[in-house]
Amino acid sequence: MPYSQSSKFLAQAAVGGALALASMSAANAAEVVRHPLLGGNTFPIARAVEVPAGKTIIFHSGTTPAPLDPKAEAGSAAYWGDTKTQALSAFARIKESLDEMKLTFGNVAAMTVYLVGDPAKGGRMDFEGFMAAYTQYFGTKEQPNLPARSTVQVAGLVAPGMLVEIEVQLVK
Amino acid sequence: MPYSQSSKFLAQAAVGGALALASMSAANAAEVVRHPLLGGNTFPIARAVEVPAGKTIIFHSGTTPAPLDPKAEAGSAAYWGDTKTQALSAFARIKESLDEMKLTFGNVAAMTVYLVGDPAKGGRMDFEGFMAAYTQYFGTKEQPNLPARSTVQVAGLVAPGMLVEIEVQLVK
Amino acid sequence: MPYSQSSKFLAQAAVGGALALASMSAANAAEVVRHPLLGGNTFPIARAVEVPAGKTIIFHSGTTPAPLDPKAEAGSAAYWGDTKTQALSAFARIKESLDEMKLTFGNVAAMTVYLVGDPAKGGRMDFEGFMAAYTQYFGTKEQPNLPARSTVQVAGLVAPGMLVEIEVQLVK
Repeated sequence: MPYSQSSKFLAQAAVGGALALASMSAANAAEVVRHPLLGGNTFPIARAVEVPAGKTIIFHSGTTPAPLDPKAEAGSAAYWGDTKTQALSAFARIKESLDEMKLTFGNVAAMTVYLVGDPAKGGRMDFEGFMAAYTQYFGTKEQPNLPARSTVQVAGLVAPGMLVEIEVQLVK
Repeated sequence: MPYSQSSKFLAQAAVGGALALASMSAANAAEVVRHPLLGGNTFPIARAVEVPAGKTIIFHSGTTPAPLDPKAEAGSAAYWGDTKTQALSAFARIKESLDEMKLTFGNVAAMTVYLVGDPAKGGRMDFEGFMAAYTQYFGTKEQPNLPARSTVQVAGLVAPGMLVEIEVQLVK
Repeated sequence: MPYSQSSKFLAQAAVGGALALASMSAANAAEVVRHPLLGGNTFPIARAVEVPAGKTIIFHSGTTPAPLDPKAEAGSAAYWGDTKTQALSAFARIKESLDEMKLTFGNVAAMTVYLVGDPAKGGRMDFEGFMAAYTQYFGTKEQPNLPARSTVQVAGLVAPGMLVEIEVQLVK
């Protein structure tokens, strides 16, 4: 191939490569999209969270609270505290874990909340108690990112009296 | 470096780059694989759904039904309807959400179904009622894609009388 | 553009492309990171499992056990076996599925365990029974990889008497 053609081919290949790389780099740089609930619903969760290619996904184990009063009778309400207290403890433990991985609650893409019925609430899960803890970490000025979320009442968790387990999937 | 060698190096680098890009582009274009159940089981779920690199994953919040008759007593069977009715309502709301994101049920890779025991079914979850709704959207001629799925009976959902919550993860 | 400059441009473009490709290739080759529990906790699960871009994620359906004694009364303890027996059966079925996809338990990134309260254990989930099965497959010399995990007691599974459903997400 004469030089002029060879040079043109190389220039095209190199520029083509550069363009393709730029385009792939753009794809990798695509941002997480958090879709709000429909109909102007302002409940502080995302309807859906879109994780583009090129991101790292972190599956986190379910996190349960630390005992509020380890000297109280095991499994009692005094031992574990109520739903809000347990949720705050679980979130504090999640934060400790995220800190260690250099992540924040802003990286949470999805959350599953498992609540146990609270005997003090007629055996129903204390959804309001959980929300009182949740809203300290999600949808604030400092941390506006909202996760996609499911919340269900389960029949029990690993220890009697435990009312809260929180599982998260994160993205960075 | 004399021109001939330099030219050869550049040509190799450029062609190498083009090949590598083609290969990565092929990887990005890899398709979602839906593995059927083993042993010829024709139950309409996938055993597993494989999401290759290069895809976008969408975590969707759990979706509950809209009330069937908002004028009925809150929490009553008349208010919410039975499991099939509630599942159809939840799927209709998921469809509305997917429409807004330009997705379809064909994009669903995984699904978790949370059912509450139906008092009218001896307190057991109405699995058949749920399936009667599910099969209108999955495994049809128009929408043959099947998700990986888990279905469990939980102790309760966010509102009394609510029998169905459906969570999906999608891929595009 | 005179040759010397053109050549320099091409060399930079090609080398730049090669470097960018090498960097992207390195990103794609990034390994799954399994973060241990904090505080030296040796319970055999990972605190979190990090799945870098470039990996394939496999969503697997929840797997329930096969009947231990299909001739026993449907739904009875003799029919299904206890929690450990059911968990071993579910893991055996998951293994069969993974074998078919050329995957192993070492590919499991996350696991959700749904247990039903065992009447023989006062209606509580038999966590120890489950762990006796789990530890045969995870955290062994042959298979040291640990998944992120959540374990909850649900109100029921698809068939009466069924005490175990195991859902996994895998990465390759």
